[in-house]
Amino acid sequence: MYTEEVLRFKKEELKEFVIEYFKKLGVPEDHSSIVADVMLEADLRGIPSHGLMRINMYYGVRLENGYMDPKTSYKVISESDTTSLIDGGNGLGHVVSVFAMNRAIEKAKKSNVGISVVKNSDHYGIAAYYSMMALQHNMIGISLSNSQPLVAPTYGKTPILGTNPISIACPSYEAYPFVLDMATSVVPSGKIQVYEKLKQKLPYGWGINNEGVMTQEPKDIKSGGCGALLPLGGDDITSGYKGYGLALAVDILCAVLSGASVLSEVGFPDKPKHCDVSHFFMAINIEAFRPVIDFKKQMDHLVEILKNSPKAKGKDRIYIAGEKEFENAEKNKTLGIPLMMKVLNDLKKDGDRVGVPFTAKPVMKDICSWYQ
Amino acid sequence: MYTEEVLRFKKEELKEFVIEYFKKLGVPEDHSSIVADVMLEADLRGIPSHGLMRINMYYGVRLENGYMDPKTSYKVISESDTTSLIDGGNGLGHVVSVFAMNRAIEKAKKSNVGISVVKNSDHYGIAAYYSMMALQHNMIGISLSNSQPLVAPTYGKTPILGTNPISIACPSYEAYPFVLDMATSVVPSGKIQVYEKLKQKLPYGWGINNEGVMTQEPKDIKSGGCGALLPLGGDDITSGYKGYGLALAVDILCAVLSGASVLSEVGFPDKPKHCDVSHFFMAINIEAFRPVIDFKKQMDHLVEILKNSPKAKGKDRIYIAGEKEFENAEKNKTLGIPLMMKVLNDLKKDGDRVGVPFTAKPVMKDICSWYQ
Repeated sequence: MYTEEVLRFKKEELKEFVIEYFKKLGVPEDHSSIVADVMLEADLRGIPSHGLMRINMYYGVRLENGYMDPKTSYKVISESDTTSLIDGGNGLGHVVSVFAMNRAIEKAKKSNVGISVVKNSDHYGIAAYYSMMALQHNMIGISLSNSQPLVAPTYGKTPILGTNPISIACPSYEAYPFVLDMATSVVPSGKIQVYEKLKQKLPYGWGINNEGVMTQEPKDIKSGGCGALLPLGGDDITSGYKGYGLALAVDILCAVLSGASVLSEVGFPDKPKHCDVSHFFMAINIEAFRPVIDFKKQMDHLVEILKNSPKAKGKDRIYIAGEKEFENAEKNKTLGIPLMMKVLNDLKKDGDRVGVPFTAKPVMKDICSWYQ
Repeated sequence: MYTEEVLRFKKEELKEFVIEYFKKLGVPEDHSSIVADVMLEADLRGIPSHGLMRINMYYGVRLENGYMDPKTSYKVISESDTTSLIDGGNGLGHVVSVFAMNRAIEKAKKSNVGISVVKNSDHYGIAAYYSMMALQHNMIGISLSNSQPLVAPTYGKTPILGTNPISIACPSYEAYPFVLDMATSVVPSGKIQVYEKLKQKLPYGWGINNEGVMTQEPKDIKSGGCGALLPLGGDDITSGYKGYGLALAVDILCAVLSGASVLSEVGFPDKPKHCDVSHFFMAINIEAFRPVIDFKKQMDHLVEILKNSPKAKGKDRIYIAGEKEFENAEKNKTLGIPLMMKVLNDLKKDGDRVGVPFTAKPVMKDICSWYQ
């Protein structure tokens, strides 16, 4: 956890900027609005690494240079009562992903289960945005994506796998919904950058150097080092092969099932290559198994068991996946979305370059703690 | 990894013993045959912790004492074109699980996706047995189960979650299929017992003592200690909350979706309580998305990329999930299924008590290395 000075903004003002920014780069207004919603949801939920911080490197640069099609002309290649195979049109991942998840939900309304796989897409932001779309329909939502290679397989030494996130969302009654959204690596690459910036040694188990040996030096992994992140579990002795297996399962369900690029073939967001990122979405209709109210009340019961269980020395609270993010969102809805100074400066610079000045006015100054 | 002296037996001879053992305890012959297949598959694949080692404590004791119904009178409570909710009849988990996975596969043949959830069941052995049933139908198989509480949630100090396994199986063309089968804890409890027996300190990150503090003493966790295993990822700083989130997702998909016992409510196999273990099975028809041959050939391509990628210092091979187990199975099919001396002595003792003498003749003596 680290703290940083921020300025807070009204969501509407930021959204207006993001929409204008993408429109200027040739993205239709309705698509720009979707991208803005997904990116701002990340900042709202306290995951700045996937928020406006990414607007230029992940999306702006790719649109300006023609690496990605601003029109995102996605199309359904084939479908059945339960499944869809979708071509993302080498456009904005958010746009095709909202379409694909909605389609999985529609199929699940009729057939109780719906799966969409998407190939020829690009980075889609926070995985949980799409899994959570299922909640309002009383469904369980699942969202997976592969991504550019940053993670070494167990016994390997170079980045072959993406941080391939897994998100699962399940509705509850009075408690916050369960929303797991995790990279299958120990940590995201952004955390290495934070430690490098703070000139701190990395915790043991996060990554390896260019010989495949565990390192605690951030520079061995980033900034010219050619090491790699480790999969969840870290070293072999702490079962890193499980995180490696999970990351590979994500690649198979997204890329092999849809016929997209796998592993190290997936492109980097800032490089002149067709990324060919792929995604997997699923919706499961709870009512097919039992009354939704019973499911939701038992979810509350499950949360209660965890909350009331004995705490480790020095800890006074046990969290449920997604809980911190829901609390962040509530706070940020009231106080405004926090943007770090560096992010703000980049937004101004990138806005000016594109021809969309950043004119949003901060509503307050604050200090924020980040979990990642 | 540790090595131990073993005697090897023909599978058929062991299977005959297991069938007679369960028949004597009131289990119908066809059910006994299923249980024997699942248990022997574990020994065959080099996972002795889930093989005949468990026959008495996990199943025999429960049947003898009437904690579990030997008839396993499972029944379908409700169903749709894609889903089944099944009551396991408080019987042998293997029996209802084979039924439930076959049912998911049948649904997937017609509807491309099939899901079965099972409540009121018991321990089902290796999760991969069921996910792998999908392979011969050119489907992706998924198998999840909750289990008795052994794992602490992040910031907790007592066992609340099971080791809740996740198994995903995907067919390939010439390469071995991808078969992930992992507990969502760092290690299974059996590994703590091995270290205790060998009088070795535990690696850092496997478990906590009764104050919730990381321990390297096996006795803090087992044998009267009241600590707990940690979820995959271990400590918070190495993202143990991700393994905790995965374990919780398994509990939700198995128990909350079916209306079974959750978390610490699930019973221990050796205690006089209705276990109420629950399972989740899914089959996905690959042909719904793309020609199976294309999927399988791309699986081989994915395996090739991993196999050919640079190795870490001191390592000469990168593995794919399931590969070690397939190699074990090939070896053990030829040489015979290895049983450790202690397991053999227990089988003799338990067989005599039940009235089914263990008369299988070893085909050879050997030394085996175990990964768990």
